[in-house]
Amino acid sequence: MKYKDHSVTDLQIAYIGGGSRGWAWNLMTDLAMESQLSGTVSLYDIDHQAAENNAIIGNRVSAMENAVGKWSYKAAGSLKEALTGADFVIISILPGTFDEMASDVHLPERLGVYQSVGDTAGPGGMIRALRTIPMFVTIAQAIRDFAPTAWVINYTNPMSLCVKTLYCVFPQIKAFGCCHEVFGTQKFLRDVFEAECGFSGLDWHDIHVNVMGINHFTWFSSASCQGRDLFPIYEKFIGSHYESGYEKPDENWMNSSFACAHRVKMDLFKRFGYIAAAGDRHLAEFMPSDEYLNDPETVRRWKFGLTTVDWRKKDLQKRLARSVRLTKGEETLPLEPSGEEGVLLIKALLGLGRQVSNVNIPNTAGQIPNLPASAVVETNALFDKDHIYPVAAGALPASIRALILPHVENHERILKAALLCDREMVVEAFLHDPLIRGQHIKETDVRALVTDMIHNTMAYLPKGWQ
Amino acid sequence: MKYKDHSVTDLQIAYIGGGSRGWAWNLMTDLAMESQLSGTVSLYDIDHQAAENNAIIGNRVSAMENAVGKWSYKAAGSLKEALTGADFVIISILPGTFDEMASDVHLPERLGVYQSVGDTAGPGGMIRALRTIPMFVTIAQAIRDFAPTAWVINYTNPMSLCVKTLYCVFPQIKAFGCCHEVFGTQKFLRDVFEAECGFSGLDWHDIHVNVMGINHFTWFSSASCQGRDLFPIYEKFIGSHYESGYEKPDENWMNSSFACAHRVKMDLFKRFGYIAAAGDRHLAEFMPSDEYLNDPETVRRWKFGLTTVDWRKKDLQKRLARSVRLTKGEETLPLEPSGEEGVLLIKALLGLGRQVSNVNIPNTAGQIPNLPASAVVETNALFDKDHIYPVAAGALPASIRALILPHVENHERILKAALLCDREMVVEAFLHDPLIRGQHIKETDVRALVTDMIHNTMAYLPKGWQ
Amino acid sequence: MKYKDHSVTDLQIAYIGGGSRGWAWNLMTDLAMESQLSGTVSLYDIDHQAAENNAIIGNRVSAMENAVGKWSYKAAGSLKEALTGADFVIISILPGTFDEMASDVHLPERLGVYQSVGDTAGPGGMIRALRTIPMFVTIAQAIRDFAPTAWVINYTNPMSLCVKTLYCVFPQIKAFGCCHEVFGTQKFLRDVFEAECGFSGLDWHDIHVNVMGINHFTWFSSASCQGRDLFPIYEKFIGSHYESGYEKPDENWMNSSFACAHRVKMDLFKRFGYIAAAGDRHLAEFMPSDEYLNDPETVRRWKFGLTTVDWRKKDLQKRLARSVRLTKGEETLPLEPSGEEGVLLIKALLGLGRQVSNVNIPNTAGQIPNLPASAVVETNALFDKDHIYPVAAGALPASIRALILPHVENHERILKAALLCDREMVVEAFLHDPLIRGQHIKETDVRALVTDMIHNTMAYLPKGWQ
Amino acid sequence: MKYKDHSVTDLQIAYIGGGSRGWAWNLMTDLAMESQLSGTVSLYDIDHQAAENNAIIGNRVSAMENAVGKWSYKAAGSLKEALTGADFVIISILPGTFDEMASDVHLPERLGVYQSVGDTAGPGGMIRALRTIPMFVTIAQAIRDFAPTAWVINYTNPMSLCVKTLYCVFPQIKAFGCCHEVFGTQKFLRDVFEAECGFSGLDWHDIHVNVMGINHFTWFSSASCQGRDLFPIYEKFIGSHYESGYEKPDENWMNSSFACAHRVKMDLFKRFGYIAAAGDRHLAEFMPSDEYLNDPETVRRWKFGLTTVDWRKKDLQKRLARSVRLTKGEETLPLEPSGEEGVLLIKALLGLGRQVSNVNIPNTAGQIPNLPASAVVETNALFDKDHIYPVAAGALPASIRALILPHVENHERILKAALLCDREMVVEAFLHDPLIRGQHIKETDVRALVTDMIHNTMAYLPKGWQ
Repeated sequence: MKYKDHSVTDLQIAYIGGGSRGWAWNLMTDLAMESQLSGTVSLYDIDHQAAENNAIIGNRVSAMENAVGKWSYKAAGSLKEALTGADFVIISILPGTFDEMASDVHLPERLGVYQSVGDTAGPGGMIRALRTIPMFVTIAQAIRDFAPTAWVINYTNPMSLCVKTLYCVFPQIKAFGCCHEVFGTQKFLRDVFEAECGFSGLDWHDIHVNVMGINHFTWFSSASCQGRDLFPIYEKFIGSHYESGYEKPDENWMNSSFACAHRVKMDLFKRFGYIAAAGDRHLAEFMPSDEYLNDPETVRRWKFGLTTVDWRKKDLQKRLARSVRLTKGEETLPLEPSGEEGVLLIKALLGLGRQVSNVNIPNTAGQIPNLPASAVVETNALFDKDHIYPVAAGALPASIRALILPHVENHERILKAALLCDREMVVEAFLHDPLIRGQHIKETDVRALVTDMIHNTMAYLPKGWQ
Repeated sequence: MKYKDHSVTDLQIAYIGGGSRGWAWNLMTDLAMESQLSGTVSLYDIDHQAAENNAIIGNRVSAMENAVGKWSYKAAGSLKEALTGADFVIISILPGTFDEMASDVHLPERLGVYQSVGDTAGPGGMIRALRTIPMFVTIAQAIRDFAPTAWVINYTNPMSLCVKTLYCVFPQIKAFGCCHEVFGTQKFLRDVFEAECGFSGLDWHDIHVNVMGINHFTWFSSASCQGRDLFPIYEKFIGSHYESGYEKPDENWMNSSFACAHRVKMDLFKRFGYIAAAGDRHLAEFMPSDEYLNDPETVRRWKFGLTTVDWRKKDLQKRLARSVRLTKGEETLPLEPSGEEGVLLIKALLGLGRQVSNVNIPNTAGQIPNLPASAVVETNALFDKDHIYPVAAGALPASIRALILPHVENHERILKAALLCDREMVVEAFLHDPLIRGQHIKETDVRALVTDMIHNTMAYLPKGWQ
Repeated sequence: MKYKDHSVTDLQIAYIGGGSRGWAWNLMTDLAMESQLSGTVSLYDIDHQAAENNAIIGNRVSAMENAVGKWSYKAAGSLKEALTGADFVIISILPGTFDEMASDVHLPERLGVYQSVGDTAGPGGMIRALRTIPMFVTIAQAIRDFAPTAWVINYTNPMSLCVKTLYCVFPQIKAFGCCHEVFGTQKFLRDVFEAECGFSGLDWHDIHVNVMGINHFTWFSSASCQGRDLFPIYEKFIGSHYESGYEKPDENWMNSSFACAHRVKMDLFKRFGYIAAAGDRHLAEFMPSDEYLNDPETVRRWKFGLTTVDWRKKDLQKRLARSVRLTKGEETLPLEPSGEEGVLLIKALLGLGRQVSNVNIPNTAGQIPNLPASAVVETNALFDKDHIYPVAAGALPASIRALILPHVENHERILKAALLCDREMVVEAFLHDPLIRGQHIKETDVRALVTDMIHNTMAYLPKGWQ
Repeated sequence: MKYKDHSVTDLQIAYIGGGSRGWAWNLMTDLAMESQLSGTVSLYDIDHQAAENNAIIGNRVSAMENAVGKWSYKAAGSLKEALTGADFVIISILPGTFDEMASDVHLPERLGVYQSVGDTAGPGGMIRALRTIPMFVTIAQAIRDFAPTAWVINYTNPMSLCVKTLYCVFPQIKAFGCCHEVFGTQKFLRDVFEAECGFSGLDWHDIHVNVMGINHFTWFSSASCQGRDLFPIYEKFIGSHYESGYEKPDENWMNSSFACAHRVKMDLFKRFGYIAAAGDRHLAEFMPSDEYLNDPETVRRWKFGLTTVDWRKKDLQKRLARSVRLTKGEETLPLEPSGEEGVLLIKALLGLGRQVSNVNIPNTAGQIPNLPASAVVETNALFDKDHIYPVAAGALPASIRALILPHVENHERILKAALLCDREMVVEAFLHDPLIRGQHIKETDVRALVTDMIHNTMAYLPKGWQ
């Protein structure tokens, strides 16, 4: 890369999972709208054709007249090819297919364990991690061998375990995980603030928060806007919206796998005093099974959707069809901001504007002093030229720490289980998961569930599991 | 205080040392130029007349037509009166007179120990601390009793020990210490960058640095501007300026007690690899006596000035005279930015704009993990609504840590010595000070020096010392 | 001192509080019964005549035919004289008189706060600390100046704060605190074991325990005898003795200020799962007021005695009279082991037999990892030649830690209050004391109590308090 | 197991590697000589016949008239069979054959890297670890599944990595590693003490030491005997024995693969001030290659032997032959103490006598506060009924820590490399090993060496390596 006045040219980005029909397109438009950067994006995907198609799409975007950031896209034939010379690496892969995901999400229902997403915590998240971790082992080794000084941005779930694996395999890696769930909560708080205080037109970036926790189970210990402390304001809002929930006019949780009415979030605030900062569907999965996910009826009462893998399969069909149209030039990606902050953070790491943003990295600096140093935590950090300086988030309250710790400990277990191909360690992790622990489920049933879930994802597991 | 749109009104600031003819005037003009704040400043000083005069001056400033921030100034008759109701407390006192300072700075010369400032480290800094700490005990108790939730900004030296005393007496205090030495180094680096890279007109705030160390002995582990890493640029600059030093056209160290040619700073970079970030006069005092302060001739060679207390006495006369003119209205304070960041930080703590700035606070969050938690350290922090979140600065390199640690340990000793009125602990601190340690000075001579220096400042010490 | 074969001769012991009519006599007989040691004991006391008398008594003991350890006793005129040349220093002083103690113990009763001992925790212990700490400041400074490498054994209460003061003033001090309360619990457990398991004649040293906590509020996390785990045995014993309590045939709590029926201890085991290891009178004082010390009736139900200062005064008269007889030679001290371990530990530190024993020292080695490093804790340690190696006791369970922490935090407050002569910090400590906190006592009443209690002990406080 | 008076009967010991012709026989005689214990030893070995033979030998020993401890030996057909019901597990396996060991020890000589043992540190130790760790993974999983509450004693090398693997796989394991190298140094110090101070007939247990470091690179920070500080005595001894070295009349390093003249040990004391406490052959391997192992000539000058694998092969033949004779009853194992402490520690863990002994366990209690918590360290510990309480050894001096840390970091790397089958991480570990680092060896040569050494041990590696 080269610095020239206030710009950087010849930047090289490697995109692992570059055949993606979602995140990759977001990146293309965000880059096209950023005038200070230009360079090459090397797309690598185990589905090489998908990467080839995206290269075509990317180059089309870059060629658009109103694209101020000019980029050249190409498909790479190997990790080595993609990574060699890279300044930045983006990882956004889908480990397995929706068939594996269907097993992750739905098989545990036979023991009465419902999951709203099934990709982070709970039985589904853990099994998904078992097939993801070996892929990340390979990716981390490749980064070490071919791009050891590149910055690595991960978008893949389960976030904490993906980042943990990268650092386990290559401790000197400069990797971090980005997730937009926190932004979603900031947007919700902006709505709350505007509704309660008579402001309007505010940018969600003006909601200043102190972030602490782990990905998808993140909390705000403080939040303010325009100097106003949002805690009493949020409390007041909850007073009048707790029962009904809150939805924007154009959103309705019943029509969406992703929307929610924020009732879980409000309930957690009432119970624990901090603002839970992720979608309700994610938050619910970290809590004991009998609270928000007891059965579909309970879920309806809390007004959030259970992921249906069917919907995801249909959505994939749509995206595949769109990909064809985009590749053929029958459709054009609109140049609109994706809402992701990845390009902003790349700029900050290039020294083009310091940023404070939430980030998933190991707790090495003790940014949350009462979680283990080896935990991957989500807190604010200061992004500066070639550096990420974590912000000292402070200690978690004992009650919230007690909710988070079992998951942190399970991350440790699942990483080991994946490396050792150790079924019994998975059983141990399941037994410690709040969705299972304390639900009067027999250990033999849990062991059978583990066996069956592993069986269903065997195509994506190393041989040691057989 | 009251929030109204994007402003805060009715803010109450207590200024301890409010008779000051320097910092107080800076505050007045900075407040007058800030449109988002207004309120009352309560000036307290043991020289009540000086506070009265400053109240007059402050009200004159506020009445100026171009003053966009409107403040009411009044002199308070007691700490209690000043503090009651305060939202912010500013401490900027002069402990003792220049006569005491003359002893601090010059008496050690009889043992060959030269000091360039004598207010922070070294024998002078430690004796100054002995008379300052009891005052800060009183101030901390008063804040605890009358303004326990106020934010407290300290400008008084010795900074580390003042802040340490505040937290020792009242651990819940919301206090921090501000110092502009780091800004000075940022300005120097801006000059370096402009000179080497052909930029011009840059704001020193664009020099992004990671700050670590203790006040007046602070270091940058990274520095960049416009995305460029300043380390190689600085190294190149030193290559051509090491021998001659660097001075701006309008500055010359020979004509000033405060200026320097940055030769010490450059030498420290060559030796330790990090950028020392304070004036050379301060830096030199933290190092062994035989390096930069061996004798006046050595000092001249390194091109920095030794403080002369005579100059300070004369300067005080000028400022007193100016005070008279200002009080009478014969002169007007010009509305120019002071270069201090205090008002910016007040705004950030009020939620009117998040800031990253360097700050002196206890190392409780482990912002520098290889210094004790009880040390008062200087690092960056994120200032947000009613919160200071330290930035994890990272560990000091072993070599720099070894330079800093004796001072941190002496802070501990001097605080205890001050509380216990324990002469022998002062002797121990002197013996561990790099200006004395290893200089073949006899312990009996050191003990006699301690006795004499304490004698010279006895008027400002508690009875326990007699 | 000199080593000769398996013995040490010419040992020098300084005894501060050497006029004592109790601990000093214990030491005399223990030394007389120890054949491997001989030397000189230098007795220092502010009551010089008492030291003179004890020198006579000590020399009489040493002259006894069956005294195998030969020692020379002399009264020292000053701390300096006593300490110069000392290999070991023993501190066993009584801070103030029983008049001060009467106020410590009984004045808080006006707010319904009853204390069973009043010398460690609670209002009485804290006020006692205020007059003790300045004495220990003086002693620590004298040790630093005249015997910096001597080992220092403290027997004075309040133990934790005495040891904390020594280390605060002279951090290099080689000091530790000894207390026999743990031995008492070991003896009780021996009785329990013999009763339940049919053993007899066991030595209490065979009760192996892991010790954790703070002095007088110490806990065993494990206990065994002859390989048997005492926890289930103790549980069974409690099953049949909880209501009635347990007393040895020759003891009855009703007849003694010191005995107890171990009901508090058994109750704490039932509630917290670890063995509380001090006399019930001590244990009760660390718990909330409404549990064991609610009123005299409650105390009777729990079957332990409230200290009566009257009894102490009468007892002192007896001991004074005995002192006269011993000095005159009308009575002879019997050569019986005192039950203290001090001489054993002195031998271990001289390298004459490694010992594991409980000890009060700062938590610097993290022997209890979830208490602050600055806390003075009681755990086992390995005593070896010129070294004390703390044994890693392990983390306290959260429930017990929550009981101990307020006291540890109050030690910090009271030490500071004593050094700063800061009444308000004493009030803060009182308000955090479990005997007061949560008892619906008005803050103004607490403040008045502090004022009155300080007034009553003013004769022993530094001038700064006036 | 059952407690009966002062004895334990029906104790079950599982011996993994139970076909051993060395350690197993030691255990048999030690058990036969211990009257307080009896029970069953279950011998498991991948060479089942060897286990069968040892069962016969063990039962013969137990049947001897003067055997006071009566034990029944049997060969187990599986880990599960051996472990089920076990109270104690002993692990003493030989990973691979002497052919693999020949490659470990001698292949690096092609790069000028000589190794005196090659089983702990250095290239040989690390490759040995690669084949050992998967075996320990299996063993740890079996212990977790079949004997989770048993105490586990490891004698296998490389010690630190074996113990680290056990805790990695099964964090709740109650495992520790025993090694007699420290005892050897205590015996040497006894000889020194007797020679210098005129004592005789002393037991090496009377040499009291504080142990710190890692296995085979262990140090004493203090050492005493009969109250005498051994440091000045050792220093004096070195003054007169440094050049010649020291050997007992019946030992000569030239005739032995195991003996040494202690010159390395003495040199390390002179350089670092602490007593290095392992055989010189081990110590040398932890230091830079150009110090003690530069070439065979250098080794001769330092007077210690390089292991010859030839000798080991011949020795094995002798032991195999002896095994045949013992099995047939043609020879009888003499009932002599083995010099190992394992049975003493078993007794201590059963509550039959508290012991202080050196032990290899994770640094979880911070027993060495300036090494990572995850390091396996060797320090003293207090062995008590069902508990090992580490003794706080204190911080390593910076100079010695700097020697140890690269090995601790390599343990981390090698464990990961073994679990991930990651050749490049092995290369990284080699490059950080002091025998290689700084010796001007090309990275490509190191990479080729790794490849070849792994190839040579491939028969004992998991499939992932192929």
